[in-house]
Amino acid sequence: MLSSTPRTTLTRSKERARADRSELHAILDAGLICHLGVVVDGSPRVVPTGYGRIGDTLYLHGSTGATSLRAAGDICVTVTHLDGIVLARSAFHHSVNYRSAMIYGPARAVEDADERLAGLRAITEQLAPGQWDAVRGPTAKEMAATTVLALSLAEASVKVRQGPPVDDEEDYALPTWAGVLPLQVSWGTPEPDPVLAPGTAVPAHIAERGHTG
Amino acid sequence: MLSSTPRTTLTRSKERARADRSELHAILDAGLICHLGVVVDGSPRVVPTGYGRIGDTLYLHGSTGATSLRAAGDICVTVTHLDGIVLARSAFHHSVNYRSAMIYGPARAVEDADERLAGLRAITEQLAPGQWDAVRGPTAKEMAATTVLALSLAEASVKVRQGPPVDDEEDYALPTWAGVLPLQVSWGTPEPDPVLAPGTAVPAHIAERGHTG
Repeated sequence: MLSSTPRTTLTRSKERARADRSELHAILDAGLICHLGVVVDGSPRVVPTGYGRIGDTLYLHGSTGATSLRAAGDICVTVTHLDGIVLARSAFHHSVNYRSAMIYGPARAVEDADERLAGLRAITEQLAPGQWDAVRGPTAKEMAATTVLALSLAEASVKVRQGPPVDDEEDYALPTWAGVLPLQVSWGTPEPDPVLAPGTAVPAHIAERGHTG
Repeated sequence: MLSSTPRTTLTRSKERARADRSELHAILDAGLICHLGVVVDGSPRVVPTGYGRIGDTLYLHGSTGATSLRAAGDICVTVTHLDGIVLARSAFHHSVNYRSAMIYGPARAVEDADERLAGLRAITEQLAPGQWDAVRGPTAKEMAATTVLALSLAEASVKVRQGPPVDDEEDYALPTWAGVLPLQVSWGTPEPDPVLAPGTAVPAHIAERGHTG
Protein backbone atom coordinates (compact mmCIF):
# COMPACT_ATOMS: atom_id res chain seq x y z
CA MET A 1 0.00 0.00 0.00
CA LEU A 2 1.04 3.59 -0.54
CA SER A 3 1.42 5.57 2.64
CA SER A 4 -0.63 8.72 3.02
CA THR A 5 1.07 12.04 3.74
CA PRO A 6 -0.37 15.56 3.54
CA ARG A 7 0.98 16.09 0.04
CA THR A 8 -0.09 12.71 -1.33
CA THR A 9 -3.62 12.86 0.07
CA LEU A 10 -6.08 14.09 -2.53
CA THR A 11 -8.21 16.98 -1.35
CA ARG A 12 -10.48 16.75 -4.41
CA SER A 13 -11.77 14.00 -6.72
CA LYS A 14 -10.86 11.48 -4.05
CA GLU A 15 -12.47 8.68 -6.08
CA ARG A 16 -9.55 8.99 -8.50
CA ALA A 17 -6.95 8.03 -5.89
CA ARG A 18 -5.34 4.59 -5.96
CA ALA A 19 -3.46 3.19 -3.02
CA ASP A 20 -1.94 0.00 -4.45
CA ARG A 21 1.80 -0.02 -4.79
CA SER A 22 1.36 -2.35 -7.79
CA GLU A 23 -0.58 0.39 -9.61
CA LEU A 24 2.24 2.84 -8.95
CA HIS A 25 4.74 0.37 -10.35
CA ALA A 26 2.57 -0.38 -13.40
CA ILE A 27 2.20 3.31 -14.29
CA LEU A 28 5.92 3.92 -13.91
CA ASP A 29 6.89 0.81 -15.85
CA ALA A 30 4.60 1.73 -18.75
CA GLY A 31 6.14 5.19 -19.12
CA LEU A 32 9.05 6.49 -21.16
CA ILE A 33 9.68 9.94 -19.74
CA CYS A 34 8.71 11.76 -16.58
CA HIS A 35 8.35 15.43 -15.78
CA LEU A 36 10.84 16.37 -13.06
CA GLY A 37 9.97 19.33 -10.87
CA VAL A 38 12.67 21.22 -8.98
CA VAL A 39 12.90 24.60 -7.33
CA VAL A 40 15.59 26.89 -8.75
CA ASP A 41 16.11 30.25 -7.06
CA GLY A 42 12.67 29.94 -5.48
CA SER A 43 10.87 29.28 -8.77
CA PRO A 44 9.50 25.98 -10.04
CA ARG A 45 11.09 24.33 -13.06
CA VAL A 46 9.58 21.36 -14.90
CA VAL A 47 11.87 19.32 -17.14
CA PRO A 48 11.02 16.25 -19.23
CA THR A 49 13.58 13.51 -18.65
CA GLY A 50 14.13 9.77 -18.64
CA TYR A 51 13.94 7.55 -15.58
CA GLY A 52 14.23 3.96 -14.46
CA ARG A 53 12.88 1.95 -11.54
CA ILE A 54 14.56 -0.68 -9.39
CA GLY A 55 12.21 -1.95 -6.70
CA ASP A 56 11.00 1.06 -4.79
CA THR A 57 13.68 3.45 -6.01
CA LEU A 58 13.43 5.68 -9.06
CA TYR A 59 16.62 6.71 -10.84
CA LEU A 60 17.20 9.90 -12.82
CA HIS A 61 20.32 11.06 -14.59
CA GLY A 62 21.82 13.95 -16.39
CA SER A 63 24.98 15.85 -17.10
CA THR A 64 26.91 16.97 -14.05
CA GLY A 65 26.39 20.46 -15.49
CA ALA A 66 22.59 20.28 -15.56
CA THR A 67 21.03 23.08 -13.52
CA SER A 68 17.92 21.05 -12.72
CA LEU A 69 19.98 18.22 -11.17
CA ARG A 70 22.37 20.51 -9.32
CA ALA A 71 19.38 22.27 -7.78
CA ALA A 72 17.73 18.94 -6.88
CA GLY A 73 17.16 18.56 -3.11
CA ASP A 74 13.40 18.15 -2.71
CA ILE A 75 11.94 17.08 -6.05
CA CYS A 76 8.67 15.91 -7.57
CA VAL A 77 8.51 13.38 -10.39
CA THR A 78 5.28 12.98 -12.35
CA VAL A 79 4.54 10.32 -14.97
CA THR A 80 1.33 10.75 -16.94
CA HIS A 81 -0.40 8.52 -19.48
CA LEU A 82 -3.16 10.31 -21.37
CA ASP A 83 -5.70 7.71 -22.46
CA GLY A 84 -8.50 9.77 -23.95
CA ILE A 85 -10.55 12.93 -24.04
CA VAL A 86 -13.80 12.82 -22.09
CA LEU A 87 -16.51 14.66 -23.99
CA ALA A 88 -19.36 15.62 -21.70
CA ARG A 89 -22.70 17.30 -22.33
CA SER A 90 -21.52 20.48 -20.62
CA ALA A 91 -18.22 22.32 -21.05
CA PHE A 92 -17.74 22.17 -17.27
CA HIS A 93 -17.62 18.36 -17.14
CA HIS A 94 -15.11 17.87 -19.93
CA SER A 95 -12.15 15.90 -18.70
CA VAL A 96 -9.47 13.44 -19.72
CA ASN A 97 -8.93 9.78 -18.98
CA TYR A 98 -5.47 9.28 -17.61
CA ARG A 99 -3.18 7.37 -15.29
CA SER A 100 -0.65 9.44 -13.36
CA ALA A 101 1.88 8.95 -10.62
CA MET A 102 3.48 11.68 -8.53
CA ILE A 103 6.46 11.00 -6.34
CA TYR A 104 7.84 13.44 -3.80
CA GLY A 105 11.02 13.35 -1.86
CA PRO A 106 14.59 14.41 -1.40
CA ALA A 107 16.78 13.35 -4.31
CA ARG A 108 19.86 11.42 -3.24
CA ALA A 109 23.00 11.82 -5.35
CA VAL A 110 24.18 8.25 -5.93
CA GLU A 111 27.87 7.84 -5.16
CA ASP A 112 28.33 4.07 -5.08
CA ALA A 113 29.79 2.88 -8.42
CA ASP A 114 27.66 -0.27 -8.61
CA GLU A 115 24.45 1.57 -7.80
CA ARG A 116 25.31 4.31 -10.31
CA LEU A 117 25.77 1.70 -13.03
CA ALA A 118 22.60 -0.16 -12.03
CA GLY A 119 20.67 3.12 -12.08
CA LEU A 120 21.91 4.02 -15.56
CA ARG A 121 21.10 0.55 -16.78
CA ALA A 122 17.54 0.87 -15.44
CA ILE A 123 17.15 4.26 -17.18
CA THR A 124 18.37 2.89 -20.52
CA GLU A 125 16.24 -0.25 -20.24
CA GLN A 126 13.16 1.82 -19.39
CA LEU A 127 13.50 3.62 -22.74
CA ALA A 128 14.65 0.63 -24.71
CA PRO A 129 14.42 -2.81 -23.10
CA GLY A 130 17.27 -5.05 -24.19
CA GLN A 131 19.55 -2.22 -25.27
CA TRP A 132 21.96 -2.15 -22.34
CA ASP A 133 23.55 -5.48 -23.25
CA ALA A 134 23.46 -4.73 -26.97
CA VAL A 135 25.50 -1.51 -26.91
CA ARG A 136 28.82 -0.21 -25.66
CA GLY A 137 28.68 0.39 -21.92
CA PRO A 138 29.76 3.62 -20.26
CA THR A 139 33.44 4.52 -19.94
CA ALA A 140 34.96 5.94 -16.78
CA LYS A 141 34.97 9.37 -18.43
CA GLU A 142 31.29 9.11 -19.32
CA MET A 143 30.45 7.97 -15.78
CA ALA A 144 32.35 10.93 -14.37
CA ALA A 145 30.30 13.31 -16.53
CA THR A 146 27.00 11.86 -15.32
CA THR A 147 24.97 12.67 -12.24
CA VAL A 148 22.74 9.84 -11.04
CA LEU A 149 19.95 10.68 -8.61
CA ALA A 150 17.83 8.26 -6.59
CA LEU A 151 14.32 9.00 -5.37
CA SER A 152 12.49 6.71 -2.96
CA LEU A 153 8.95 5.74 -3.95
CA ALA A 154 7.95 6.01 -0.28
CA GLU A 155 5.93 9.20 -0.77
CA ALA A 156 3.82 8.78 -3.87
CA SER A 157 0.28 9.22 -5.08
CA VAL A 158 -1.54 7.66 -8.00
CA LYS A 159 -4.51 9.12 -9.80
CA VAL A 160 -6.58 7.36 -12.43
CA ARG A 161 -9.65 8.45 -14.35
CA GLN A 162 -11.37 6.01 -16.67
CA GLY A 163 -14.75 5.63 -18.28
CA PRO A 164 -17.46 7.83 -19.75
CA PRO A 165 -18.29 11.42 -18.79
CA VAL A 166 -20.20 12.11 -15.60
CA ASP A 167 -22.76 14.79 -16.34
CA ASP A 168 -25.20 16.74 -14.24
CA GLU A 169 -28.49 14.88 -13.87
CA GLU A 170 -30.53 17.36 -15.91
CA ASP A 171 -27.99 17.40 -18.77
CA TYR A 172 -28.58 13.74 -19.64
CA ALA A 173 -31.79 14.89 -21.33
CA LEU A 174 -29.79 17.00 -23.82
CA PRO A 175 -29.47 15.55 -27.35
CA THR A 176 -25.69 16.21 -27.26
CA TRP A 177 -23.34 13.36 -28.19
CA ALA A 178 -21.14 12.38 -25.24
CA GLY A 179 -18.45 9.81 -24.77
CA VAL A 180 -14.72 9.25 -24.92
CA LEU A 181 -12.30 9.84 -27.76
CA PRO A 182 -9.46 7.40 -26.96
CA LEU A 183 -5.80 8.18 -27.54
CA GLN A 184 -3.30 5.53 -28.50
CA VAL A 185 0.47 5.58 -28.49
CA SER A 186 2.18 3.14 -30.82
CA TRP A 187 5.63 2.43 -32.15
CA GLY A 188 6.46 3.16 -35.76
CA THR A 189 8.86 1.31 -38.03
CA PRO A 190 12.50 1.50 -36.86
CA GLU A 191 14.43 4.11 -38.85
CA PRO A 192 18.07 3.02 -39.34
CA ASP A 193 20.81 5.60 -38.85
CA PRO A 194 21.59 6.75 -42.44
CA VAL A 195 25.27 5.93 -41.92
CA LEU A 196 24.58 2.41 -40.69
CA ALA A 197 26.39 -0.28 -42.71
CA PRO A 198 23.90 -1.62 -45.28
CA GLY A 199 22.41 -4.94 -44.29
CA THR A 200 22.71 -4.37 -40.52
CA ALA A 201 19.64 -6.19 -39.21
CA VAL A 202 17.27 -4.59 -36.72
CA PRO A 203 17.70 -6.62 -33.51
CA ALA A 204 14.68 -8.59 -32.32
CA HIS A 205 14.26 -6.55 -29.12
CA ILE A 206 13.74 -3.42 -31.25
CA ALA A 207 11.90 -4.93 -34.23
CA GLU A 208 9.39 -6.78 -32.07
CA ARG A 209 8.62 -3.73 -30.00
CA GLY A 210 8.07 -1.77 -33.18
CA HIS A 211 5.51 -4.28 -34.32
CA THR A 212 3.65 -4.91 -31.12
CA GLY A 213 3.10 -1.27 -30.18
CA MET B 1 11.45 35.85 -31.56
CA LEU B 2 11.58 34.52 -28.03
CA SER B 3 13.38 36.77 -25.61
CA SER B 4 16.33 35.33 -23.72
CA THR B 5 16.40 35.41 -19.92
CA PRO B 6 18.70 33.55 -17.54
CA ARG B 7 16.21 30.77 -17.01
CA THR B 8 15.28 30.36 -20.69
CA THR B 9 18.85 30.30 -21.96
CA LEU B 10 20.12 26.77 -22.44
CA THR B 11 23.40 26.10 -20.71
CA ARG B 12 23.81 22.72 -22.43
CA SER B 13 22.84 21.16 -25.79
CA LYS B 14 22.44 24.67 -27.16
CA GLU B 15 21.87 23.29 -30.65
CA ARG B 16 18.48 22.08 -29.44
CA ALA B 17 17.23 25.58 -28.66
CA ARG B 18 14.67 27.24 -30.93
CA ALA B 19 14.01 30.95 -30.83
CA ASP B 20 11.01 31.33 -33.14
CA ARG B 21 7.77 32.31 -31.50
CA SER B 22 5.97 30.33 -34.23
CA GLU B 23 7.68 27.12 -33.01
CA LEU B 24 6.51 27.83 -29.48
CA HIS B 25 2.96 28.33 -30.72
CA ALA B 26 3.10 25.16 -32.85
CA ILE B 27 4.26 22.99 -29.94
CA LEU B 28 1.59 24.40 -27.63
CA ASP B 29 -1.15 24.11 -30.24
CA ALA B 30 -0.28 20.46 -30.95
CA GLY B 31 -0.51 19.49 -27.27
CA LEU B 32 -3.38 18.25 -25.15
CA ILE B 33 -2.07 18.54 -21.61
CA CYS B 34 0.80 20.34 -19.94
CA HIS B 35 2.73 19.68 -16.75
CA LEU B 36 2.25 22.58 -14.36
CA GLY B 37 4.98 23.20 -11.81
CA VAL B 38 4.28 25.14 -8.65
CA VAL B 39 6.01 25.51 -5.30
CA VAL B 40 3.93 24.40 -2.29
CA ASP B 41 5.45 24.92 1.16
CA GLY B 42 8.87 25.22 -0.43
CA SER B 43 8.63 21.96 -2.38
CA PRO B 44 8.03 21.50 -6.09
CA ARG B 45 4.79 19.96 -7.29
CA VAL B 46 4.16 18.86 -10.89
CA VAL B 47 0.55 18.37 -11.97
CA PRO B 48 -0.76 17.30 -15.38
CA THR B 49 -3.54 19.63 -16.51
CA GLY B 50 -5.28 21.10 -19.54
CA TYR B 51 -4.50 24.47 -21.07
CA GLY B 52 -5.47 26.77 -23.90
CA ARG B 53 -3.72 29.55 -25.81
CA ILE B 54 -5.02 32.90 -26.99
CA GLY B 55 -2.28 34.86 -28.75
CA ASP B 56 0.62 35.09 -26.35
CA THR B 57 -1.31 34.13 -23.24
CA LEU B 58 -1.74 30.62 -21.90
CA TYR B 59 -4.82 29.82 -19.81
CA LEU B 60 -5.09 27.20 -17.09
CA HIS B 61 -8.07 26.35 -14.93
CA GLY B 62 -9.13 24.29 -12.00
CA SER B 63 -11.38 24.11 -9.03
CA THR B 64 -11.20 27.08 -6.67
CA GLY B 65 -10.22 24.45 -4.08
CA ALA B 66 -7.19 23.13 -6.01
CA THR B 67 -4.03 23.44 -3.92
CA SER B 68 -1.81 23.75 -7.00
CA LEU B 69 -3.75 26.77 -8.29
CA ARG B 70 -4.08 28.45 -4.89
CA ALA B 71 -0.34 28.18 -4.47
CA ALA B 72 0.29 29.51 -8.00
CA GLY B 73 2.37 32.73 -7.96
CA ASP B 74 5.48 31.92 -9.98
CA ILE B 75 4.79 28.87 -12.12
CA CYS B 76 6.37 26.81 -14.88
CA VAL B 77 4.35 25.15 -17.62
CA THR B 78 5.96 22.45 -19.76
CA VAL B 79 4.45 20.82 -22.85
CA THR B 80 6.34 17.83 -24.26
CA HIS B 81 5.83 15.78 -27.41
CA LEU B 82 7.84 12.56 -27.41
CA ASP B 83 8.53 11.63 -31.03
CA GLY B 84 10.85 8.65 -30.73
CA ILE B 85 13.58 6.78 -28.93
CA VAL B 86 17.10 7.42 -30.19
CA LEU B 87 19.09 4.18 -30.12
CA ALA B 88 22.80 4.88 -30.22
CA ARG B 89 25.83 2.59 -30.38
CA SER B 90 26.73 3.42 -26.77
CA ALA B 91 24.47 3.56 -23.73
CA PHE B 92 25.74 7.08 -23.04
CA HIS B 93 24.39 8.54 -26.29
CA HIS B 94 20.90 7.12 -26.02
CA SER B 95 18.36 9.90 -26.19
CA VAL B 96 14.84 10.77 -27.28
CA ASN B 97 13.48 12.85 -30.12
CA TYR B 98 11.09 15.41 -28.76
CA ARG B 99 9.63 18.88 -29.00
CA SER B 100 9.14 20.74 -25.74
CA ALA B 101 8.16 24.17 -24.57
CA MET B 102 8.74 25.61 -21.10
CA ILE B 103 7.06 28.81 -19.99
CA TYR B 104 7.92 30.66 -16.81
CA GLY B 105 6.17 33.50 -15.11
CA PRO B 106 3.81 34.75 -12.49
CA ALA B 107 0.32 33.34 -12.89
CA ARG B 108 -2.38 35.99 -12.99
CA ALA B 109 -5.79 35.08 -11.55
CA VAL B 110 -8.24 36.19 -14.24
CA GLU B 111 -11.08 38.28 -12.78
CA ASP B 112 -12.70 39.79 -15.86
CA ALA B 113 -15.83 37.79 -16.76
CA ASP B 114 -15.26 37.96 -20.52
CA GLU B 115 -11.62 36.92 -20.25
CA ARG B 116 -12.53 34.09 -17.88
CA LEU B 117 -15.06 32.77 -20.38
CA ALA B 118 -12.61 33.17 -23.29
CA GLY B 119 -9.93 31.34 -21.33
CA LEU B 120 -12.24 28.43 -20.52
CA ARG B 121 -13.33 28.27 -24.13
CA ALA B 122 -9.69 28.09 -25.24
CA ILE B 123 -8.98 25.29 -22.74
CA THR B 124 -11.99 23.24 -23.92
CA GLU B 125 -11.19 23.85 -27.60
CA GLN B 126 -7.57 22.80 -27.05
CA LEU B 127 -8.75 19.39 -25.86
CA ALA B 128 -11.62 19.07 -28.28
CA PRO B 129 -11.88 21.59 -31.13
CA GLY B 130 -15.49 22.37 -31.96
CA GLN B 131 -16.88 21.25 -28.61
CA TRP B 132 -17.52 24.62 -26.98
CA ASP B 133 -20.36 25.51 -29.31
CA ALA B 134 -21.73 21.94 -29.28
CA VAL B 135 -22.27 21.60 -25.54
CA ARG B 136 -23.97 23.40 -22.67
CA GLY B 137 -21.96 26.44 -21.61
CA PRO B 138 -20.98 27.15 -18.02
CA THR B 139 -23.54 28.40 -15.52
CA ALA B 140 -22.84 31.22 -13.07
CA LYS B 141 -22.42 28.62 -10.33
CA GLU B 142 -19.88 26.65 -12.38
CA MET B 143 -17.97 29.84 -13.20
CA ALA B 144 -17.87 30.72 -9.50
CA ALA B 145 -16.36 27.32 -8.70
CA THR B 146 -13.60 27.74 -11.29
CA THR B 147 -10.25 29.45 -11.01
CA VAL B 148 -8.83 30.70 -14.33
CA LEU B 149 -5.15 31.57 -14.47
CA ALA B 150 -3.33 33.44 -17.23
CA LEU B 151 0.36 33.03 -17.99
CA SER B 152 2.17 35.29 -20.44
CA LEU B 153 4.29 33.54 -23.06
CA ALA B 154 6.89 36.32 -22.69
CA GLU B 155 9.41 34.09 -20.91
CA ALA B 156 9.59 30.81 -22.73
CA SER B 157 12.08 28.38 -24.16
CA VAL B 158 11.72 25.74 -26.84
CA LYS B 159 13.82 22.62 -27.21
CA VAL B 160 13.71 20.22 -30.12
CA ARG B 161 15.71 17.08 -30.87
CA GLN B 162 15.24 15.32 -34.18
CA GLY B 163 17.16 12.86 -36.30
CA PRO B 164 19.47 9.89 -35.86
CA PRO B 165 21.81 9.23 -32.94
CA VAL B 166 25.06 11.13 -32.67
CA ASP B 167 27.75 8.67 -31.64
CA ASP B 168 31.39 9.01 -30.71
CA GLU B 169 33.60 8.84 -33.77
CA GLU B 170 35.19 5.50 -32.87
CA ASP B 171 31.83 3.86 -32.13
CA TYR B 172 30.66 4.14 -35.75
CA ALA B 173 32.92 1.14 -36.47
CA LEU B 174 30.85 -1.05 -34.11
CA PRO B 175 28.48 -3.52 -35.78
CA THR B 176 25.66 -2.37 -33.48
CA TRP B 177 22.32 -1.41 -35.04
CA ALA B 178 21.53 2.26 -34.42
CA GLY B 179 18.64 4.47 -35.38
CA VAL B 180 15.33 5.83 -34.19
CA LEU B 181 12.24 3.99 -33.01
CA PRO B 182 9.46 6.48 -33.73
CA LEU B 183 6.46 6.98 -31.47
CA GLN B 184 3.06 7.90 -32.80
CA VAL B 185 -0.01 9.20 -31.02
CA SER B 186 -3.32 8.58 -32.74
CA TRP B 187 -7.00 8.85 -32.00
CA GLY B 188 -9.07 5.73 -31.58
CA THR B 189 -12.72 5.21 -32.45
CA PRO B 190 -15.10 7.41 -30.44
CA GLU B 191 -16.72 5.45 -27.59
CA PRO B 192 -20.28 6.64 -26.95
CA ASP B 193 -21.42 7.13 -23.37
CA PRO B 194 -23.30 3.87 -22.58
CA VAL B 195 -26.36 5.87 -21.52
CA LEU B 196 -26.45 7.91 -24.74
CA ALA B 197 -29.79 7.66 -26.59
CA PRO B 198 -29.39 5.01 -29.31
CA GLY B 199 -28.82 6.51 -32.73
CA THR B 200 -27.19 9.70 -31.50
CA ALA B 201 -24.69 10.41 -34.27
CA VAL B 202 -21.05 11.24 -33.56
CA PRO B 203 -20.64 14.90 -34.61
CA ALA B 204 -18.29 15.55 -37.53
CA HIS B 205 -15.78 17.51 -35.41
CA ILE B 206 -15.26 14.41 -33.27
CA ALA B 207 -15.65 11.70 -35.91
CA GLU B 208 -13.23 13.35 -38.33
CA ARG B 209 -10.60 13.87 -35.68
CA GLY B 210 -10.92 10.21 -34.74
CA HIS B 211 -10.17 9.19 -38.30
CA THR B 212 -7.39 11.57 -39.18
CA GLY B 213 -5.31 10.98 -36.03
